[in-house]
Amino acid sequence: MTAAPIVTLTTDFGRRDPFVGIVKGVILGICRSAVLVDLSHDLPPQDVLAGALALESSVPFFPPGTVHLAVVDPEVGGPRRPLALAAGGQLFVGPDNGLFSFLYDLPDWRAVTLSNPAYRLPAVSRTFHARDLFAPAAAHLALGVALPRFGEPVTDPVRLPWPRPVRDGDGVVGEVIYVDRFGNLLTSLREADLAPLLGRGEVEVSVAGRTIRGLSAFYGERGGEEPGALIGSARRLEIFVFRGDAAQSLGVGPGAAVRVRATRSP
Amino acid sequence: MTAAPIVTLTTDFGRRDPFVGIVKGVILGICRSAVLVDLSHDLPPQDVLAGALALESSVPFFPPGTVHLAVVDPEVGGPRRPLALAAGGQLFVGPDNGLFSFLYDLPDWRAVTLSNPAYRLPAVSRTFHARDLFAPAAAHLALGVALPRFGEPVTDPVRLPWPRPVRDGDGVVGEVIYVDRFGNLLTSLREADLAPLLGRGEVEVSVAGRTIRGLSAFYGERGGEEPGALIGSARRLEIFVFRGDAAQSLGVGPGAAVRVRATRSP
Amino acid sequence: MTAAPIVTLTTDFGRRDPFVGIVKGVILGICRSAVLVDLSHDLPPQDVLAGALALESSVPFFPPGTVHLAVVDPEVGGPRRPLALAAGGQLFVGPDNGLFSFLYDLPDWRAVTLSNPAYRLPAVSRTFHARDLFAPAAAHLALGVALPRFGEPVTDPVRLPWPRPVRDGDGVVGEVIYVDRFGNLLTSLREADLAPLLGRGEVEVSVAGRTIRGLSAFYGERGGEEPGALIGSARRLEIFVFRGDAAQSLGVGPGAAVRVRATRSP
Repeated sequence: MTAAPIVTLTTDFGRRDPFVGIVKGVILGICRSAVLVDLSHDLPPQDVLAGALALESSVPFFPPGTVHLAVVDPEVGGPRRPLALAAGGQLFVGPDNGLFSFLYDLPDWRAVTLSNPAYRLPAVSRTFHARDLFAPAAAHLALGVALPRFGEPVTDPVRLPWPRPVRDGDGVVGEVIYVDRFGNLLTSLREADLAPLLGRGEVEVSVAGRTIRGLSAFYGERGGEEPGALIGSARRLEIFVFRGDAAQSLGVGPGAAVRVRATRSP
Repeated sequence: MTAAPIVTLTTDFGRRDPFVGIVKGVILGICRSAVLVDLSHDLPPQDVLAGALALESSVPFFPPGTVHLAVVDPEVGGPRRPLALAAGGQLFVGPDNGLFSFLYDLPDWRAVTLSNPAYRLPAVSRTFHARDLFAPAAAHLALGVALPRFGEPVTDPVRLPWPRPVRDGDGVVGEVIYVDRFGNLLTSLREADLAPLLGRGEVEVSVAGRTIRGLSAFYGERGGEEPGALIGSARRLEIFVFRGDAAQSLGVGPGAAVRVRATRSP
Repeated sequence: MTAAPIVTLTTDFGRRDPFVGIVKGVILGICRSAVLVDLSHDLPPQDVLAGALALESSVPFFPPGTVHLAVVDPEVGGPRRPLALAAGGQLFVGPDNGLFSFLYDLPDWRAVTLSNPAYRLPAVSRTFHARDLFAPAAAHLALGVALPRFGEPVTDPVRLPWPRPVRDGDGVVGEVIYVDRFGNLLTSLREADLAPLLGRGEVEVSVAGRTIRGLSAFYGERGGEEPGALIGSARRLEIFVFRGDAAQSLGVGPGAAVRVRATRSP
């Protein structure tokens, strides 16, 4: 017996309306053995970058063959292409608007449009492609239908202007890209971006006019109400307040500049 | 091997308290193979109409034999009857307060009370029938127990004063019945209600002193910040602002009148 | 065939970030047949007592052998111990900070630390133990790995200062410990605490300067906008307003004193 296929769902549909449940009904109607896992449905409405970040931090923890359905899709019904993708041993379905940008750094990504009517609902609305188009595609991928059968290859998918770190003298500048549930500030600076600095003694992180000296290993290491910084579980620089809310304390949100520089020990 | 039975859940319990999880524990304790799907648990508290709308738009996308447990139940513990229903090849469990009104237009609906103690928890509280009464009933339906075994037939279930469209000169008047996650205004006017108008040239939709000319095919078709109207995925007239929040822009919520009339092309 | 193992999840991670989905990916990667059930992920951030209450009211409704993963963990990465526990025929995984206090009244509880690296992810971060440590432990428990294999016995787990009722003349005093989704006030007074009073005629409940005479059997029994009191589904004294929000009406939250006394019938 083969293991039941996993299908994850990532949307900005919220949970008050039954949109997500409907999508699951369609998937289960086609692939009854699918194991459905919600990644998030409370992404800020129409925030494609937040969706891409959620996927990027989740995908490595799912087994090979997992199908990820992701729909943050303000352009639904318009000319943007619907995609199925394979990369790193996993499968993806969603709109071609940058949601999958992080896959295009992998060597083995392949993408196709969802043009084959055999893998859609009989009637496709122009307002709910998650139900009519992406759910059936995800379910058929879960059933083992091969990628090329869904449609024509796509070689020029849309890429997000994913924020890149900028060198600045003896340091590097990035920005806050996401505020998590606890008020922690996730930044565009990855562990790899800071590696050259980390070898050169202590670092100093500046944000919103405040300076944080040194990186913590975990939240509780920095007591009091002072903000701290650490490399978080998504391997990005994160700014936090222990048992507090850094976004609120610092009055800072996405877009705020974050500067890191190495300081020699005095 | 028979396919695992699907049980959906629709409540106003929210997600902060463990009420929904407890209901799932009871279901799985009786029917371990059940596949559980949340439709919504964030319905406005005690809003039976919102629950009925959620079910109505979801049910058609689930496979035959699906069991739908729905509990929006301000009168829990009082004299209102607990029901099990069959209609359109699917099964339903919940309080008799109008939640299932949309089923009574189907030719084949049947309903019974949940009076058989064999399909309840041993102790039934008067405050949490979802756990003590509806969950065991849903689980036993999922196991294949026949409807008549649950209790006596019910032929006069409660029907909601489901808003009906009213003809008005050359048009039809309905109302906003629900605001979805994106601020889209769902109305009581179904595609079928507008069909007579749609054949007679362009239509004009009036709401909150604003007039929208023509129906869009999809959200992105109407750019700018002007509100648009379309037949949404639930086959109801919907008023929207592309990439915006129509409820907020128009200052309108449930109960607001919506008028549609046909205009001859000039 | 053995029944698929159930794993419940209780956290304060919220649903906007993909933390919970990632934890589920890790569990399914190790134990593909696990049936995952969310109890709550919207506990007030870092509120260990709320987590303990959610577990306490849910656990009795799950079948024997269920694994409960619970993570409200402000001290993650610090010296607090990670635990696996068995009690009352069910299994538990989470931080040693009082979350499992309610288990220590059971005669058969056993606990161990999670020190065996065989049941962790290869790299354990210091900020996301739910993913790196608790999820693998829960999955291995679900696979049937015996408790002692996870690590050394723990005999002195942390216990919450769980609020105990205080006798006061002819009555008993407790406090509001939780406000649920409907604004109902859950108190520290259990049915058993009130039993001596309930045999002596009517009771009187005082909270926030208001006096409630008599206990209702269900919410709808008390009409109007007057607050009522009843023994709720978690077998605790609850204060409510029918179709209303008691917390709002009374201006009361966790910590408020609640006094119950018996009154002889006049």
